[in-house]
Amino acid sequence: MVVSLEKNRPREVVIIGGGFGGLYTAKALAGANVNVTLIDKRNFHLFQPLLYQVATGTLSPADISSPLRSVFRKSKNTRVLLGEVKDINPTTQQVILNDQIVPYDTLVVATGANHSYFGKDNWKEFAPGLKTVEDAIEMRRKIFSAFEAAEKETDPEKRRALLTFVIVGGGPTGVELAGAIAELAYKTLREDFRHINTSEAKILLLQGGERILPFMSPELSQAAAEALQKLGVLIQTQTRVTDIANDIVTFKKSDQVQELRAKTILWAAGVQASPMAKVLAEKTGVECDRVGRVMVEPDLTVNGYKNIFVIGDLANFSHQTGQPLPGVAPVAKQQGEYVAGLIQLRMQGRSLPKFHYSDVGSLAMIGQNLAVVDLGFLKLTGFLAWVFWLLIHIYFLIEFDTKIVVIIQWAWNYLTRNRRSRLITGREAFLETPDVDTNTPYESPETKQTVKV
Amino acid sequence: MVVSLEKNRPREVVIIGGGFGGLYTAKALAGANVNVTLIDKRNFHLFQPLLYQVATGTLSPADISSPLRSVFRKSKNTRVLLGEVKDINPTTQQVILNDQIVPYDTLVVATGANHSYFGKDNWKEFAPGLKTVEDAIEMRRKIFSAFEAAEKETDPEKRRALLTFVIVGGGPTGVELAGAIAELAYKTLREDFRHINTSEAKILLLQGGERILPFMSPELSQAAAEALQKLGVLIQTQTRVTDIANDIVTFKKSDQVQELRAKTILWAAGVQASPMAKVLAEKTGVECDRVGRVMVEPDLTVNGYKNIFVIGDLANFSHQTGQPLPGVAPVAKQQGEYVAGLIQLRMQGRSLPKFHYSDVGSLAMIGQNLAVVDLGFLKLTGFLAWVFWLLIHIYFLIEFDTKIVVIIQWAWNYLTRNRRSRLITGREAFLETPDVDTNTPYESPETKQTVKV
Repeated sequence: MVVSLEKNRPREVVIIGGGFGGLYTAKALAGANVNVTLIDKRNFHLFQPLLYQVATGTLSPADISSPLRSVFRKSKNTRVLLGEVKDINPTTQQVILNDQIVPYDTLVVATGANHSYFGKDNWKEFAPGLKTVEDAIEMRRKIFSAFEAAEKETDPEKRRALLTFVIVGGGPTGVELAGAIAELAYKTLREDFRHINTSEAKILLLQGGERILPFMSPELSQAAAEALQKLGVLIQTQTRVTDIANDIVTFKKSDQVQELRAKTILWAAGVQASPMAKVLAEKTGVECDRVGRVMVEPDLTVNGYKNIFVIGDLANFSHQTGQPLPGVAPVAKQQGEYVAGLIQLRMQGRSLPKFHYSDVGSLAMIGQNLAVVDLGFLKLTGFLAWVFWLLIHIYFLIEFDTKIVVIIQWAWNYLTRNRRSRLITGREAFLETPDVDTNTPYESPETKQTVKV
Repeated sequence: MVVSLEKNRPREVVIIGGGFGGLYTAKALAGANVNVTLIDKRNFHLFQPLLYQVATGTLSPADISSPLRSVFRKSKNTRVLLGEVKDINPTTQQVILNDQIVPYDTLVVATGANHSYFGKDNWKEFAPGLKTVEDAIEMRRKIFSAFEAAEKETDPEKRRALLTFVIVGGGPTGVELAGAIAELAYKTLREDFRHINTSEAKILLLQGGERILPFMSPELSQAAAEALQKLGVLIQTQTRVTDIANDIVTFKKSDQVQELRAKTILWAAGVQASPMAKVLAEKTGVECDRVGRVMVEPDLTVNGYKNIFVIGDLANFSHQTGQPLPGVAPVAKQQGEYVAGLIQLRMQGRSLPKFHYSDVGSLAMIGQNLAVVDLGFLKLTGFLAWVFWLLIHIYFLIEFDTKIVVIIQWAWNYLTRNRRSRLITGREAFLETPDVDTNTPYESPETKQTVKV
């Protein structure tokens, strides 16, 4: 494996994926003596941490998206290529797209992760996840259609099912979805309907582990749980979903199987590495972990291929704590900047010590004036945490693209407590108002207790 | 046909359609001693005059939409009903929905118009129109995908076709689309691509009649045409499209048939009344005009049915000028307010003189600092007209719903000359990069002249 070192020809750096990892790599290489090709399937970078706000009607997709071409307009050494990578060839150093072949000197793979249904892919149609703009619009359609259908429903049992929202997974996305839906039902929409009382909606957050937001300190998990419960969210920990079908979610808590009839079931549980990991494994023999992430070297390269880097959610970097780093934006950002630096040093025949993640902490929004922030040295809850959450997100948002509109939007929603982006769009689903299948036999005394909790 | 007149029971007023006509009727009835039911297929009012700005990446759908429930949150006598009207029964005074029946004392039908392909419905798949949010997102996808495909295309003829945009119809929508696409190609996107020069794009506006914006004064049509040409738009008047298929639009100008290969063909030509007109005709025997609009009485009722009103684009009101009133928002607004007033007066046994439209003039946006405004007594072009256009649209936008975000968005786009909402979303079309069929035999010397014009 030869890394050519002539000084004259600028290196061809090919980056696959326009998420945080790929974007920060390309940004850090702007102006360097390399040609950068950024390949993505989409023509925009998506600020995924805020996708839940699209799904719940606060923001529009464009508010959290930055057209890749406008991000790199001024970086003349960077070209954006829209296309899907089918394969890579580490020997000939080529990336094979659906419609062309792109040669590289250095390859950076940052294609991220998708959600995983733990092999139960049939759950997907009943419990959509949240990774793309289309996912968010579909989730938004589901949530608001459920309220609309409930408004028309006369059968009390069906109405109850239409007003029952189950979120599977107690990580940040699950917590933020649960909080946002609770605010919708118990605040925003309260005066909007004439026949239903949206406050009767049940919002259930199911978490497999002992506590929600497990990556945070126990106190903060506790604080988050209390804040959610104050909003009206019912939290079930140590609860595993065993089946999802026919508007019924079945879950197991301490050997007690429970069933709950719910029209809206949202998936915020498992993730798995994107298919590119498999391609890399086949072509380079690199190992992948249980969820398909690539086991990377201390310098984020693929074992045996000094010119292939894997970063972000696609990478399993365990050289620091023994545990893989979390799949969050700051990790991807730092890894992208590390790789960009290393590429430039190598052109001078130099190198860098192994990658080291400096933990910036973690945070989650729960609702208006409610968030939790864990910076290690500093733990915040409530209003202060909420302000901190806003500032951090605004800071990251405006880094690529002035998202002044988001700030106004937030300020406005804050003042009016309204959600202006609650459009039911997409497939003509606003017509087939969702109906609930109540023919399925269904026993569940526990549930009623549960739901009464 | 009996209009019951007991004073005790509040009248049931049913409004079909949440466009300008229906919305202003309901608004004017807020607080009146009537129960208002506003029926729409969608859960939001769409500000159609700005739809072209969604299609060209300036605004997001939510920016020009107002959730109906939040518009009427405070009007406790108004309920919003999501559903599709299948039929009406004037005898039993009932509106039949897909899933329920709604009785009425007074019915207001304001279901508007769709576009018409003059019977050539097979053109639709090649030349989408612009009426719904989904239309706009699809148009946006088509426009921006064409630039992306051109960036990758090596065959010069295909590339030319990918960079050729044909807009059929020289009314306000056609003019505004042509202007916005010209600004995209010649200003906004100029620095975004590496392989293509977006300034080579051809934007062709085809108009059947003698001049664009025919409803305006000849001077203003002329001014608009010159402004568009200055932007780089090629205008062909007295030009009829005779065929659209296979990326080729065929049109006829003074007996000369021309063909033009264009990947993006947009339809801004004919409109036809929505299907409700047919239902009304069948059930009440009322006459419809050539494009299917209901011929209404001087008081906007249906002949023989004093309690059925038809307003907005669905109505043909010719009692004022002999000509039908234009299908624009101000007509719908005034008709809605007239009907609301008449309904309330009737409850006191009184009435109103026949409807009279006070013409507020017409206006069209061409591009940055460029618009035309015709108020009859006052004609504006250029910057002044543009400012006027902005103020008018902001005024109408904020009437239902504070659209502060739109103002910020516009201000921002104005300063940065960027379009932030240019997402290619929807069906996974960003992958199947559009290809041009160049196998179709195709002779067209005229076209090349034309396009060189």
